[in-house]
This record gives sequence, C-alpha cells and structure tokens, in this order.
Amino acid sequence: MRFLAIGDVVGRPGRNILKNTLSKIRENYKIDVIIANCENAAGGNGLTKKVADELFATGIDIMTMGNHVWANKEIFSFIENEPRIVRPANYPECTTPGRGYNIFEKNNVRFAVINLCGRVFMENFDCPFRKSDEILAKLDTKIIIVDFHAEATSEKIALGFYLDGRVSCVYGTHTHVQTADEKILPNGTAYITDIGMTGPYDSVLGVDKEIVIQKFVTMLPVKFEIARGKAQFNGIVFEIDEESGKAISIDRINFTLEE
Amino acid sequence: MRFLAIGDVVGRPGRNILKNTLSKIRENYKIDVIIANCENAAGGNGLTKKVADELFATGIDIMTMGNHVWANKEIFSFIENEPRIVRPANYPECTTPGRGYNIFEKNNVRFAVINLCGRVFMENFDCPFRKSDEILAKLDTKIIIVDFHAEATSEKIALGFYLDGRVSCVYGTHTHVQTADEKILPNGTAYITDIGMTGPYDSVLGVDKEIVIQKFVTMLPVKFEIARGKAQFNGIVFEIDEESGKAISIDRINFTLEE
Amino acid sequence: MRFLAIGDVVGRPGRNILKNTLSKIRENYKIDVIIANCENAAGGNGLTKKVADELFATGIDIMTMGNHVWANKEIFSFIENEPRIVRPANYPECTTPGRGYNIFEKNNVRFAVINLCGRVFMENFDCPFRKSDEILAKLDTKIIIVDFHAEATSEKIALGFYLDGRVSCVYGTHTHVQTADEKILPNGTAYITDIGMTGPYDSVLGVDKEIVIQKFVTMLPVKFEIARGKAQFNGIVFEIDEESGKAISIDRINFTLEE
Amino acid sequence: MRFLAIGDVVGRPGRNILKNTLSKIRENYKIDVIIANCENAAGGNGLTKKVADELFATGIDIMTMGNHVWANKEIFSFIENEPRIVRPANYPECTTPGRGYNIFEKNNVRFAVINLCGRVFMENFDCPFRKSDEILAKLDTKIIIVDFHAEATSEKIALGFYLDGRVSCVYGTHTHVQTADEKILPNGTAYITDIGMTGPYDSVLGVDKEIVIQKFVTMLPVKFEIARGKAQFNGIVFEIDEESGKAISIDRINFTLEE
Ligand SMILES: [Fe+2]
Ligand SMILES: [Fe+2]
Ligand SMILES: [Fe+2]
Ligand SMILES: [Fe+2]
Ligand SMILES: [Fe+2]
Ligand SMILES: [Fe+2]
Ligand SMILES: [Fe+2]
Ligand SMILES: [Fe+2]
Repeated sequence: MRFLAIGDVVGRPGRNILKNTLSKIRENYKIDVIIANCENAAGGNGLTKKVADELFATGIDIMTMGNHVWANKEIFSFIENEPRIVRPANYPECTTPGRGYNIFEKNNVRFAVINLCGRVFMENFDCPFRKSDEILAKLDTKIIIVDFHAEATSEKIALGFYLDGRVSCVYGTHTHVQTADEKILPNGTAYITDIGMTGPYDSVLGVDKEIVIQKFVTMLPVKFEIARGKAQFNGIVFEIDEESGKAISIDRINFTLEE
Repeated sequence: MRFLAIGDVVGRPGRNILKNTLSKIRENYKIDVIIANCENAAGGNGLTKKVADELFATGIDIMTMGNHVWANKEIFSFIENEPRIVRPANYPECTTPGRGYNIFEKNNVRFAVINLCGRVFMENFDCPFRKSDEILAKLDTKIIIVDFHAEATSEKIALGFYLDGRVSCVYGTHTHVQTADEKILPNGTAYITDIGMTGPYDSVLGVDKEIVIQKFVTMLPVKFEIARGKAQFNGIVFEIDEESGKAISIDRINFTLEE
Repeated sequence: MRFLAIGDVVGRPGRNILKNTLSKIRENYKIDVIIANCENAAGGNGLTKKVADELFATGIDIMTMGNHVWANKEIFSFIENEPRIVRPANYPECTTPGRGYNIFEKNNVRFAVINLCGRVFMENFDCPFRKSDEILAKLDTKIIIVDFHAEATSEKIALGFYLDGRVSCVYGTHTHVQTADEKILPNGTAYITDIGMTGPYDSVLGVDKEIVIQKFVTMLPVKFEIARGKAQFNGIVFEIDEESGKAISIDRINFTLEE
Repeated sequence: MRFLAIGDVVGRPGRNILKNTLSKIRENYKIDVIIANCENAAGGNGLTKKVADELFATGIDIMTMGNHVWANKEIFSFIENEPRIVRPANYPECTTPGRGYNIFEKNNVRFAVINLCGRVFMENFDCPFRKSDEILAKLDTKIIIVDFHAEATSEKIALGFYLDGRVSCVYGTHTHVQTADEKILPNGTAYITDIGMTGPYDSVLGVDKEIVIQKFVTMLPVKFEIARGKAQFNGIVFEIDEESGKAISIDRINFTLEE
C-alpha cells in the first residue's frame, strides 16, 4: 500500500499548490492514501471547517495536526465529529476533544494513523514513548503510521528507533524544513526526521521573511503574515507491505511551483 | 573557489570515515578548502590537541565549533595559538579565548570564516544578527563563509536571509541531521539549514540509541556512549565566485561507509 | 533618602489599592520617591497613556517595566516622550524606543534608576551583567537603583552580588511573589529577590485562578482574566545614605485590602 | 499535629546548622514531625547513605527530594529500602525506584507525604495536577502534606489552589529562596510558594557566589563549589487539625547562624 504524507500545509499558498498538483502526484506515484499535516492550514494557524473542506476536496484522506491544533477555535465545533482528523494523542486524556489516533480502511486494507507531539523545546505533553506503547497495545492493524510532531532531532530519532519494527512508518513534522535522512530502520520501519512544509517558498517557515527578521533583530512585537510568491511542496511517498506491515520504500518529494 | 563543509564530526567513527575518504572526496569534487565542525570530535564532546592534530592531518583546513566548544577543557591550552580554529563569535567579547572569525588564504584567494551560535532553545549568546553586522563591518574579503550553529529552523533561515547578498554562504550545524533545503538565496548567498553529522550512522546524533531511548523513557541518569558500527559522512560542497563572492552552486554530500 | 518600590501593578485591582493607600503609605514611611513596576498595569498586559496618567496621579514618581512592556502597543505613542518611564535596558540598543535608565532629582538629590531583564527562562535579552557595567560607566550619581525583572533566583542573586557596592539597591520583579530574603549585601547594596505583586490577592499572579488551573490541566486555549476580590499591596521601603550611596535599611511591605 | 518542613538542605553547611539547632527548634515549636527536602544534601547534589544517616540522626523524620534526586548514584542502592525517603511521584511510573508518596504514623496519627516536581522551566515530568488526583484517590489519611518542587510561581500557586481543601498543606521547594506569601487558602490548605534553602547564607543558592557570577559573565565552564561561612535555616512550621485535616496555622522560620 502506497502512502503520501504531506508536510505542514501553510495558508493559502500551501492549499493552492495542493489544488494544482495533488491529483497528478497521486496518479504519478500511484498513491493509495494521502495524509497531510494541517495544523497551519488556516492562515498559518490551526484549521477552520471551510479550510478543512477545501483540503479534503483536493484529495487529502486524513489530516494530522500538531501543537497549533487549537490555534483557531473554530476547530472545537467540528473535530469531535470528523473521524478523518487526528490530533496529537499525548494531550491530556479525558479533557481533549477529538482523536489521538484512528483506524481507516482503503481498498480493503485497514491501517492506523497516530499523531504525537514531542516535548523537548515544546509544551508539557504526556510522554510520547509511553503513550505509543499504550496505543499500540490497543491496535490490531498490520499497518501503523506515526506523525511525530516535534522539534528536537534527538527525540524524533529516538522515537523512530523505539517504534522500529512495531509500526510501519514514523515521520516527523513541525520544523517546516525537510530533512535528508529518510531510511528504513533495521527492523523495518520507514523513518525521516522531518517531511518539511508545503507553503510559501521564499519565507521563514511560511511567514514573511522581513517580519521574522525584524522580530529577531528588534525583539519588538510584530504581526506575522503568510509570505507571498512561489510555493513549495514537501512530503514523502512510502510503500508498506500489507501482509507484514513492514516498509518497502521511503522517498522524499520536494518541488516548487510558480504562482 | 570550491569549499567542502563537513557536518559535526562525532568521535572516532567520525574521524575514521574522514581518514578513509577525505582525500578522495577532495580530489573528486576538486575542493580547494575543507572546513569541518569539530565540537564533538573528541569522544563526542569538545576537542583535544591530539584529536585536532589527527583531524588536520586528514586534510581539514579549518575547524569551526559550537556550544560544546569548551566541553573538553584541554582546548583552553591550545585554542589561543591555533588560528585554524574558529569558535562561536557571539560568546562574550573580552573574556572568551580564541577567535570568533578569521581570515584565511588559499591559492592566493583570501576568504573569511565566521562561526556563530543560535539562541533559540540554546544558551544566552550575544545576538547573532547584530554580531554578524559587527564582524562584517571589519571584513574586506569578497568571500565570507558562516557556520551558524543553531537549533531552531526559524532562526537559521532568518539569519540566512539577513545575510543574503552580504556573505557567500550560510550553512547550519548542531542538529546533526542534514536538511534537504540547500539553495542559493535571491541575492546570491548559498544556504542550507543543517549540513548534518559525520559519525555513527545507526545512532541518535552519534550516541548509542539504546542509551538515549532509556534516558527519554526513564528520566534516570545514563552515561552517553558513542555508537559503533557503520559511519556516515555528511557535508556540502559549494562553489563561490572569487570576483563577486556570490555563490555558484551548493550540493549536499551524504554517504555511509561500513566499518 | 527613602524609596518605596512597588511590585508589578496588575490591572484595576492593583491601581485601586494604590489610589486608596499610597498617599498614606508615603506619609507613614516618610517616602521621598515612589517607583512602581507597571508592566501589567493595563488589564494585566502593558501600559496605556490613560493608565499611566492614572498611576502617576496616585503619587508614583517613576515607572519601571519588564518583558511585557510592549504588550499594549499604545506605549509606542508615548514612551519616547515620557522620561519617567524606564524600560529594560538590555533590549537591543538602537532599535528600542524609550530609556533603559534615567537620572532623576528629588529634594535636590540626584539618583539613577536602571531597569534590566533576566535571560534565564526568559527571552534573549542582552547580557544584564555586561549591560550593567556599561551603564554604570556612564553614571555619576551616588544613588543608583536597579529593578531586575527576572525569573531565576540564581540570576537575580548573582546580579545582586555582582553589583554589590556599585549600586544602592537591586530588587527583583516579575515572579509576582514576594520573597523573604531582603538584606544588605556585604558591600552596602540593599537586595531582595522579588518584591512581589500589587493586584488581586486570591489569584494566580493576578489572573483568575480557575482559568489558570484549567490551562494547566487541559492544555486547551483559555482567555486570561484579571481576578476579582480583595487586593494585595507588595513592595519594599529602603533608605539610602545620600553621601555614600550605601543602603541603610530595606523592609518589606505586604498587606491586603478588602474591596 | 505540628509539622516542621525544612527547605532544600545544601551540603555540609546545611547539615551542620541542623545538627546545631534542630533539637532546640523541635522543642521550642513543639514539633511532632520533621520533613526536610534533601535533594542537595550531599555536596550540593543528591544524597548518599552516609549523609542520609547523618541527617536522620539530627531528628529529621522524612526526606523529600526533587529534580536532583539521582544526582548522586549511590541513592539507587538504598532508596528502595528506605520508606522514609519520598521522591517526586511524577517520574515515570514502573521504571522509577523508590516511592512518590508514603503513609507515616506518629503519636498514633497517620498522615501522608507526597513529593511532586513542576514542569514549567523544568524537565518533562508527568502532569503534577493529574498525578495528584491519582494519588489522592488512593489515600485515606486525613492529613496529607505535599512538597511541590517547582520553579514557576504560576504552576506552584495553581497547584496550591487545585489541591485546596483536598490536602492539608502544599509547600514549594527548589528555588532556594523563601517566599513571603504563606497563607491558609479559602478551603483550609496551608500554602507557601517556597520554603527556601538551609545552607550557606552568603551564596547563590548555596554555591560560591564568585563562581556563579563567573559562569553568568563568561559562559565558560566552572566547577560549582558549596560556599563557606555563615549558614541559614529556612523552613515553615504548620499545624494541622487531626480530625479535619485542615490547616490551623503556617509560619515561616528564617534565621542564620555564625560558623
Ligand atoms: Fe507547523
Ligand atoms: Fe508545530
Ligand atoms: Fe554537534
Ligand atoms: Fe552543538
Ligand atoms: Fe509582571
Ligand atoms: Fe514580567
Ligand atoms: Fe534544591
Ligand atoms: Fe531542585
């Protein structure tokens, strides 16, 4: 089974490049399932119903999220009733709306998608290592995909090895920069530290570069704005053996499109 | 003029892969100057005289450092008298031994190398943006290379744009994971967020993976040990026009070597 | 000369207790000069012209600020023309409006007030130790008062000792909790780690306690609101010898007032 | 029932002042139970068997710990068999040796002691709010004492209010500076943000002040040493009603003793 995972979709430029290229990519790479990290899809912060609908219409099957999941409060009105959205599983049990993982079926193949947040240089989420164990104990699908939304390379690689052989793929999101370390780990799990960002190319993580520079240099308040111009598409294609749940391949996708 | 920059060299596995491959790489890529980040060269932490000599003997011309520069105290005995070592320039002025930048000459071409540390998720270094301005005001070489040793992708990309057109290349180090975003910025500066690590391949940033996992899972004290086995070489080759100081190309190098 | 320094004034409850008690305190303690930290005076975040006027009218002579100085953007319209407001001196030189220190005169005695921010667990301000040296080199007043707005007890105590004998008083602000370690250091500088908060008593740092608890327990977004009910007054009174600039005494003030 | 809680005991100076004054304090204040935070008792870092024995001999009944609990590895050899030591309960369940809380009996009165670590500006412990709920659900003693070892005033005060009426006392440790906000919360829980440090008076959190200043100013490596000279005793005395488990009083103790 072949998956496409798309790096953090940022604002309108990110949505537009998906509209213009996703059906072709799906065809070219013979993709069965498309998963996209959408924590920055609505104006760079969170998700609205309209934006979610717009993105599902481009061909995305499943959305994962991250630390910005609640940045647009509109999400509270629909996340509970939208099984295709998976938010970080290590938010507090009991009080957090939505799902931290879910089981899907496509072409008669069942697979699970788990979303987790890192803790190093981030907020005080529950331990992603122990939370993984907890979730894996409940799952019976051969294929399990993990979007690990985290900052520190050490935590991401460590979780990759921790889950090696127990899940099909662990890919990182959140830094908005694609890494070049895609590989299949010794026990069969596809791994990459970060799949990157789908949004404005000439920008700092999607944001207008002059504004971010001004922030760093002056430490005065600024208003972040999504950058304009050329867009980039960042993601990975990976194939998982349906019998064993092991990874067969993992490849990076990384291209730009003029406006 | 063609440069090779080598990502954080970690311990004996990192040194060995350099011994075994560096002269060939130099030849293949027609390299004029080799710069290596050596903050983790001695057992994963800092640098000793013996290790420095060993590394210079492999063909390295210039060493840059990072937040681990003082991890092995032996460095205090030789950094002051070793012009080929450049440590982060934004340590406190006046009290810090060594040089934050230096001017070199090779094949009758003069060029400067600057080392800077980031602040986001790191220690309280002086502002790398303002420190760059300060140093650039003193430099008269056409070619200027910056090793920006930093954690956060936002800070690294922002500094890249900040220096675009004013220096020849800004490359990142410190995360030990190579990124896939190498490019030439609009005003002619070669840029990449992180050039990666040269050291043990099957590891967490060079460290034995089981030890790091144990640390994350138990929060109990562990003793970090350099991992064994296959090594990886991570770096970039970039060419700079000697007249203009602008970048002509930037390419990633990324390979592994069995023990 | 006798000074009253008032801990972070929070919102209307903080302003009201000042209106109701400040003239009496000034009289009782024979205060010559009143300095108040006002970074949270306007609705808990920053300062407006109206709030500043209201506070100066209660008898405050000088306002110091902190990391929330820019939280209300209205301050950009008047800080430049208001010599009685002193904001952290270790914001970037050149680009920051306002003053990091100033010299005042009362009853024919000249004195300086410096405001500095800490860096540990805070933002990347310039080094407060080196910035102090820089400012002290320019000052010629016998009496020098420092409001060190910082989080970590280690950094606060270390700066106190660093400036011991070179300034008249170093008092901490920012944690909103008064400490019980007021003392005169060996070389004559009055010191206290934090002078506390002037605002709602039954609260978490001035904010409604249920909202803060909800934030900690659920990690979901909340809207902070200033707490209601009884208010507290937190501050210190210290006396400085006008000839030597050395401290004669330092005492805490800490009382509550029903609505 | 009357309790004495002693703030972080630091090194030999901290141990000596206990040897010289504890029996007298016990008598003067009619103390029934003495609890001391001992995470820094052995040379400023962790605890050894010898130091633990020495401290129990001074009259301490129960030791609580903190983020430095494992700093001296010797503790792994005796913590499991020492029911009088309570370490932070929110270390990972299953893999952490020792107890996170325990039930004690004195003069026929049973009471529980819980130790928790904060997360803000600290490590990634399990949520102290939810962990409290979990532990309280298992306890049947009327009297429950909580040592909350944490940095941020907001987290400490919020946990105090969260447990108000459900435990007898929440007192903070870790910052090594005593706060002046002791009070009985609306529902009967005694509270103080930090009870302070018992160790060298003329120091930065117990450490030689010149060394700490050097660290802040130069950012070069230093070797922390316990300061010498006069010692300070920091703690609180609180009385709890045995029938209701509610607090009757809470008072700070804070004195120094010449060598
Ligand atoms: Fe993102
Ligand atoms: Fe994120
Ligand atoms: Fe490194
Ligand atoms: Fe580093
Ligand atoms: Fe404040
Ligand atoms: Fe503040
Ligand atoms: Fe401590
Ligand atoms: Fe501690």
